[in-house]
Amino acid sequence: MTPFSGFPSSASPTEHWRHLRLDRHEGVATVTLARPEKLNALTFGAYADLRDLLAELARERSVRALVLGGEGRGFCSGGDVDEIIGATLALDTAALLDFNRMTGLVVRAIRECPFPVIAAVHGVAAGAGAVLALAADFRIADPSARFAFLFTRVGLSGGDMGAAYLLPRVVGLGHATRLLMLGEPVRAPEAERIGLLSEVTEEGRAPARAAELARTLAEGPALAHARTKALLTAELDMSLAAAVEMDASTQALLMTSDDYAEFHAAFTGRRPPRWQGR
Amino acid sequence: MTPFSGFPSSASPTEHWRHLRLDRHEGVATVTLARPEKLNALTFGAYADLRDLLAELARERSVRALVLGGEGRGFCSGGDVDEIIGATLALDTAALLDFNRMTGLVVRAIRECPFPVIAAVHGVAAGAGAVLALAADFRIADPSARFAFLFTRVGLSGGDMGAAYLLPRVVGLGHATRLLMLGEPVRAPEAERIGLLSEVTEEGRAPARAAELARTLAEGPALAHARTKALLTAELDMSLAAAVEMDASTQALLMTSDDYAEFHAAFTGRRPPRWQGR
Amino acid sequence: MTPFSGFPSSASPTEHWRHLRLDRHEGVATVTLARPEKLNALTFGAYADLRDLLAELARERSVRALVLGGEGRGFCSGGDVDEIIGATLALDTAALLDFNRMTGLVVRAIRECPFPVIAAVHGVAAGAGAVLALAADFRIADPSARFAFLFTRVGLSGGDMGAAYLLPRVVGLGHATRLLMLGEPVRAPEAERIGLLSEVTEEGRAPARAAELARTLAEGPALAHARTKALLTAELDMSLAAAVEMDASTQALLMTSDDYAEFHAAFTGRRPPRWQGR
Repeated sequence: MTPFSGFPSSASPTEHWRHLRLDRHEGVATVTLARPEKLNALTFGAYADLRDLLAELARERSVRALVLGGEGRGFCSGGDVDEIIGATLALDTAALLDFNRMTGLVVRAIRECPFPVIAAVHGVAAGAGAVLALAADFRIADPSARFAFLFTRVGLSGGDMGAAYLLPRVVGLGHATRLLMLGEPVRAPEAERIGLLSEVTEEGRAPARAAELARTLAEGPALAHARTKALLTAELDMSLAAAVEMDASTQALLMTSDDYAEFHAAFTGRRPPRWQGR
Repeated sequence: MTPFSGFPSSASPTEHWRHLRLDRHEGVATVTLARPEKLNALTFGAYADLRDLLAELARERSVRALVLGGEGRGFCSGGDVDEIIGATLALDTAALLDFNRMTGLVVRAIRECPFPVIAAVHGVAAGAGAVLALAADFRIADPSARFAFLFTRVGLSGGDMGAAYLLPRVVGLGHATRLLMLGEPVRAPEAERIGLLSEVTEEGRAPARAAELARTLAEGPALAHARTKALLTAELDMSLAAAVEMDASTQALLMTSDDYAEFHAAFTGRRPPRWQGR
Repeated sequence: MTPFSGFPSSASPTEHWRHLRLDRHEGVATVTLARPEKLNALTFGAYADLRDLLAELARERSVRALVLGGEGRGFCSGGDVDEIIGATLALDTAALLDFNRMTGLVVRAIRECPFPVIAAVHGVAAGAGAVLALAADFRIADPSARFAFLFTRVGLSGGDMGAAYLLPRVVGLGHATRLLMLGEPVRAPEAERIGLLSEVTEEGRAPARAAELARTLAEGPALAHARTKALLTAELDMSLAAAVEMDASTQALLMTSDDYAEFHAAFTGRRPPRWQGR
């Protein structure tokens, strides 16, 4: 039997992403912001590539975990001062809205794609770079990592790309207000203390550790991971009663999956389970 | 005057709970998972008993606090591998949904009953056992306690019985994602650091301390406690404007209660208040 | 060109606030609870003044940050036992509701006004005083500060003035339940650890540090701050998808503001920006 591989439409998959680097290896996609001479500052093209890449990967069955990292001295310094800030000053109203909706769609794509996203953060994660990391499921960071939600420093709202929604739900409203209103840097020890980081590694080890976690996740019960992520995302916006109903139907569905039966067979056979992700 | 004791229907109260132990003493109900040879692993019967017991107790006026604990080496190891996981493999679609809705109803009953619930956790609280503790109002734990939301380890969703709703609201979205997605154990020091525990006791003291807190609560203004719990539960699902209205009407109501007048009389009379819970 | 100064109606601004002290200096309003002989216990008049003062200030353009502090030995001991608790015992149902809706409106006014509010807390912040501080955007405290949500101690609900909505969103549901249900004091070190404080100063320095932060905020991009606050407040009650849309339209709007252009001009001119708040 050919393994099921999604529901392809007529649209052809993109062969080359010009504004970022994509590597794929055994269920793990690694997306690297690769503009190190500019601290991986984002351009219109980079946002658009992230939006479309995540949409394409979400339609596939082969991706089971994604690592997002940055090349060179830091993770991502945010929107480029010239290529974004300068350029937006010349845009008309509709184009300004299109741009800001596009960046928001990147965050929604990270939250709504069916595989866990792991941000591997070293050095600076500033502005939109901090929000990309915030939208990930896991944030694995070097001790020298620092986050800065710089938006008010350029005259904009700290609520950019869903940050005013996500950050209070990760670190609480008090810390989120301080970080978004003042735009001050948050270094790894504080970030860990307030719940912004999933894990702090030894210096220089964040990318390797993120890759290791991605491999572990990809080798695991991918369908269970995908539904866990979907429920965590959806239940932030639901009542307890609705969430309990959603959990019940999800769990009933997964109890019919191959992986659930496999767990039981492996447990009773005293062997490790062979997860299929279906 | 006969004290008011609720609105009894024709249904007769249950005389014997077969799948758990219930003790009652001066307003405190103590529910003990009592299957120590299996680390208090839950069975279909245990879930059903919890669902119906909480519903019965919620209809009474005499229960003012409830302690939930486990006998033997640990709190609760979750759903029994044979009696739940094995058995569910043979259930049809409707029965799978019924089972998962039942477990969710237990969590809703814990959150929606009119008395505070205190989980006394020692040793392991795994899978559904971790969620039962999570649903409680207070989690009092031994230093050796450890929590593990093991669901993905058996091929299921980490969002089980409302866990993907509750855990982010207790420890934040970042920690909740890590705990529910990976199913790794969380020991008491980390659990305390991230806000999962109300209190850590000396080793072996969690049950006694939980009983003490239950006694304090039961001797206090029970109506005020009940409304505090109801508002905390409801206002997670409400807007600020609606919450402020709900607080206002609740507080106006309680300002007509005997306990509120009693506080003022006691304060002006320089004596401790005699709370009636009405 | 005359600077724009809001949309005045026929209503005349209040000349004298009898139940609190208001100072204004270069965009910073300082509101002081000034009844030190009663630890700044709140009266009907003080609540009413806070409600109307915040509404008046919110209509102006000149206020860009507000500091709320208390004179004497502490911040605020909450509702006065005689002038509030005693008096409410004599009120009819409609008046009880009016009173509790008024106190809730003070909290809504703090959350919904267009400038950041900084609570400078020294000594005790109890009952309604704790909630006033909780509703602020920043809580700057002396090491000797202590919070106590005393409501259940007087026979009332811990959900007072939106506390059961706000506190779980600031410190998580577990800590919030403990604090609101038991009414126990929370001292500055614990308050800082659980995320209730924005900053702890040296002893006696909270008012000066709050004034300094207010000055910094008032000199900054006030429109960006105002929108950041509005989004943080609103997005607690919105879905991710709606929040992302709200961020997009807000950011598109601010990209047409003078301050955003000024940032870019200053950056390219290698000089500090001159923020206008428009």
